[in-house]
Amino acid sequence: MNSGPLCGAVEAGGTKFVCAVGRGPDDLLATERVPTTSPAETLARVVQFFRHAERDHGRLAAIGVASFGPVDLCRASPRYGHITSTPKPGWADTDVLGPLRAAFPAPIGFDTDVNGAALAEGRWGAAREVDAFVYLTVGTGIGGGAVVRGAPVHGLVHPEMGHLRVPHDRRSDPFEGTCPFHGDCLEGLASGPAMAARWGAPAESLPAEHPAWALEAHYLALALHNLVCTLSPGRIVMGGGVMSQAALFPLIRRGLADSMNRYVQTAALSTAVDRYVVPPGLGVRAGVLGALALAIDTTGLP
Amino acid sequence: MNSGPLCGAVEAGGTKFVCAVGRGPDDLLATERVPTTSPAETLARVVQFFRHAERDHGRLAAIGVASFGPVDLCRASPRYGHITSTPKPGWADTDVLGPLRAAFPAPIGFDTDVNGAALAEGRWGAAREVDAFVYLTVGTGIGGGAVVRGAPVHGLVHPEMGHLRVPHDRRSDPFEGTCPFHGDCLEGLASGPAMAARWGAPAESLPAEHPAWALEAHYLALALHNLVCTLSPGRIVMGGGVMSQAALFPLIRRGLADSMNRYVQTAALSTAVDRYVVPPGLGVRAGVLGALALAIDTTGLP
Repeated sequence: MNSGPLCGAVEAGGTKFVCAVGRGPDDLLATERVPTTSPAETLARVVQFFRHAERDHGRLAAIGVASFGPVDLCRASPRYGHITSTPKPGWADTDVLGPLRAAFPAPIGFDTDVNGAALAEGRWGAAREVDAFVYLTVGTGIGGGAVVRGAPVHGLVHPEMGHLRVPHDRRSDPFEGTCPFHGDCLEGLASGPAMAARWGAPAESLPAEHPAWALEAHYLALALHNLVCTLSPGRIVMGGGVMSQAALFPLIRRGLADSMNRYVQTAALSTAVDRYVVPPGLGVRAGVLGALALAIDTTGLP
Repeated sequence: MNSGPLCGAVEAGGTKFVCAVGRGPDDLLATERVPTTSPAETLARVVQFFRHAERDHGRLAAIGVASFGPVDLCRASPRYGHITSTPKPGWADTDVLGPLRAAFPAPIGFDTDVNGAALAEGRWGAAREVDAFVYLTVGTGIGGGAVVRGAPVHGLVHPEMGHLRVPHDRRSDPFEGTCPFHGDCLEGLASGPAMAARWGAPAESLPAEHPAWALEAHYLALALHNLVCTLSPGRIVMGGGVMSQAALFPLIRRGLADSMNRYVQTAALSTAVDRYVVPPGLGVRAGVLGALALAIDTTGLP
């Protein structure tokens, strides 16, 4: 792959900001992890990283920011580039782009962390040459991005796939859900903190044979059913900390095929579901490479 | 609006095939309704309509077919242009395009009826200048199409929004649902036939104050919640026979705003929801004009 112009990338996450500068996914010149503390401190360290990078490697042609959200993506809005209604303490209504805009003349690409990761998976990872696909991450939160014909989808704001409403049978699962906005939406039922609250132990401590995983796969399969019915994605890439439990993928795939019940006749939803619901090709690098993809797209160069 | 090349259009529905020839939405030269009987008889009448149209008006530059489904939209598939797993008697595995291809040299555009209608609403109707939006029809079946940046979305097959899974509290609504594939999916709970089965009377006979409509709006609002979380559409256009009950729109809008619970901060999901969930701008013509849009796009002309 040819190297492009020098770009900066920030994966803005709830626990860390991962920064990088480079010319492509295999040509990163510097990276740094900044812990997510206060907005002012965190963003100052990001600016500092890019200042040092420019000193060492030259002017940045563009910067990409892939942020946790919800964020304001409407360029006409006075809050464009802000994190809006996050429950994360101190971060609601934070102008993420402001300090970067003030410090660097480079154009800045901005989108959600999951839209960025989806873009990176489509360009360099598990969804190459797939015309329309979804990236879903299941961890502290649940989020998803959709890419259609090479660009993330956002008409009104941006997708919030973690907040899908799914069937919840309170007779077999009386757990109320943890989402402060929706109670038993997908994130309320199936995020890492929801699992911990339901079972009284962190998700990563639950062994593969624990009934938690079948229930987790059940809810995730229902969510995938809804993504398939809405977008008909050509592939679904699933990442995030909760998905590191190896037992989950086979359970989710079977659950999705069972739930669709051959209404949509395609091998992807029956015999070939192993190649339809897949882990990220870029692993944990999907986030920062997503920010890099946003930066590259902002340069307007191919 | 300038007129384009002469195009043929077929809205292939479960009760009628609506055929038209024309140069644009305001320039239809001939139209005909063909009742949906057997595939052979119905398609022969469609071919005959276009033969007469060519005799009277000249060669068709393209034909568009917007069909009930599920359909095979994969051009590489031997079943491209077929209706596949429909429960409609006699129509499963029907080659809809075959008779048209055999009779006319014109290129043929093909998509689902709802993707076609969505395309037409985006071009000439209620979703003009909206970058990403959804068209949902609620009638004998429930179906939806999504348009992103001017073209329908279909990665794997095509959306099947009627078969979304939504929360269903069997304590307050013990109705099992009518979908032969999924039981209580959206279509199983909220289509016209589902309403008739639940209440023992046709939907159109139920007065506006009947509790049927609040329950109907509840399920449709949950479905819209999921569409918003997945696609973040810039607008949602709702048509179909069930939606002709005027009491529904206000109930659905309020239900959507309540369900989202201000997690996504935008006027469209609170104070301006009246302009976010809207009826079709093209009324019942959305279907055949969708087929016309597919034909126009197939000519490759602007």
